[in-house]
Amino acid sequence: MTNPTAAMLVIGDEILSGRTRDANMFHLAGELTKAGIVLKEVRVVSDDHAAIVAAVNALRGAYAEVFTSGGIGPTHDDITADAIAAAFGAHIDVRADARAILAEHYARSGTELNEARLRMARIPDGARRIDNPISKAPGFSLGNVHVMAGVPNIFQAMVASLMPTLTGGEPLLSQTLRVLRGEGEIAKPLADLAAEFADLSFGSYPFVKDGAFGTNLVVRGTDAARLDAAMTRLAAQVAM
Amino acid sequence: MTNPTAAMLVIGDEILSGRTRDANMFHLAGELTKAGIVLKEVRVVSDDHAAIVAAVNALRGAYAEVFTSGGIGPTHDDITADAIAAAFGAHIDVRADARAILAEHYARSGTELNEARLRMARIPDGARRIDNPISKAPGFSLGNVHVMAGVPNIFQAMVASLMPTLTGGEPLLSQTLRVLRGEGEIAKPLADLAAEFADLSFGSYPFVKDGAFGTNLVVRGTDAARLDAAMTRLAAQVAM
Repeated sequence: MTNPTAAMLVIGDEILSGRTRDANMFHLAGELTKAGIVLKEVRVVSDDHAAIVAAVNALRGAYAEVFTSGGIGPTHDDITADAIAAAFGAHIDVRADARAILAEHYARSGTELNEARLRMARIPDGARRIDNPISKAPGFSLGNVHVMAGVPNIFQAMVASLMPTLTGGEPLLSQTLRVLRGEGEIAKPLADLAAEFADLSFGSYPFVKDGAFGTNLVVRGTDAARLDAAMTRLAAQVAM
Repeated sequence: MTNPTAAMLVIGDEILSGRTRDANMFHLAGELTKAGIVLKEVRVVSDDHAAIVAAVNALRGAYAEVFTSGGIGPTHDDITADAIAAAFGAHIDVRADARAILAEHYARSGTELNEARLRMARIPDGARRIDNPISKAPGFSLGNVHVMAGVPNIFQAMVASLMPTLTGGEPLLSQTLRVLRGEGEIAKPLADLAAEFADLSFGSYPFVKDGAFGTNLVVRGTDAARLDAAMTRLAAQVAM
């Protein structure tokens, strides 16, 4: 596949401690697939400066796009913006354009733009802002790294702001065949078809439903006609 | 903290394509926290030999325990066992003890133990089996790497089999204070307390409910009395 590649970095102790179930990975994965961008790797790290810097530098060198979620709020544990700046060796401080957005937003609600809230205007030099229509404090893109909030509805709004600015690829299509047979029965014909249709990707996902074994067979690729051909053959060989 | 550290490696195209929302990370995170083992990093990679080998080798050197989920079934895309063996430079083939378990299981249901199903008896030399009470095909531990299935109910059963064999630490305790104030208002007192109680970890998780901003403040640590003391101070300073 010639589609662009991507990685995601989820930042937050609340995911690693089991307090919060991550929702952003699932959302981003779906949006990238629609845009024809192939998500190849996700990492989750804690609110730790060195861990964030190391992960960002590993991922931004290996993939075309990197998306982060979490750690850009006003509290002491929100250290992502400074860690991203450090990873790039970029200067970071409160930036006038971001400050103006926050000042207008808080003035409207009669809320003080205090020192803590001003932290959300810390954006590295050279970064492009990512709009946040929900709570205004912007995300940003620096190089190929896109830095977004962790709160799911804000993350989703930022992804929606960002996606039109990215270069996608051919949409990644998939078709699913659900069969009420265990994986062990259909593994051989599936492997044979996967070898024959080497331009497509074949996945097999078992489930147990009402005590019976079943399998979802998923074929992925970018050529709809090839997908149709593979699916027709697959259905003839494994459906019952 | 002197608690043991851990990482998780989730293996599977279905997570990265957005087809499936991962459930295993959330489950494992909660179980490790109860056992006093600190989950420091999670990686998600695709069904790709080189990607699995590289991730396993990076993680097993950096953390006390590594847990994997996915890719140990009977189909062509189930390549985890061989990748783990390769990461350790260990020999792998169908092992007699695992084969006997599968043979008995399939004989009971009158199902053929065919070549595909036999793949599930491939376990590296020197690995300890992890019991699978649901569908019998075992996981395994090799060194500090624990290899388990991706289907959530089987993963959970394997985690239950495995946990009593691990060395945990003091239970990681947490207390949560929910306040109906935005993060920007409570950031200063929170940061001051975090500096004063440096042996504890303070997290701040904003939410929006019915149009109002609120924050969950979470204090984590292993000393219940210190947690109580911090929470009492926190409540006095930020609650309204």
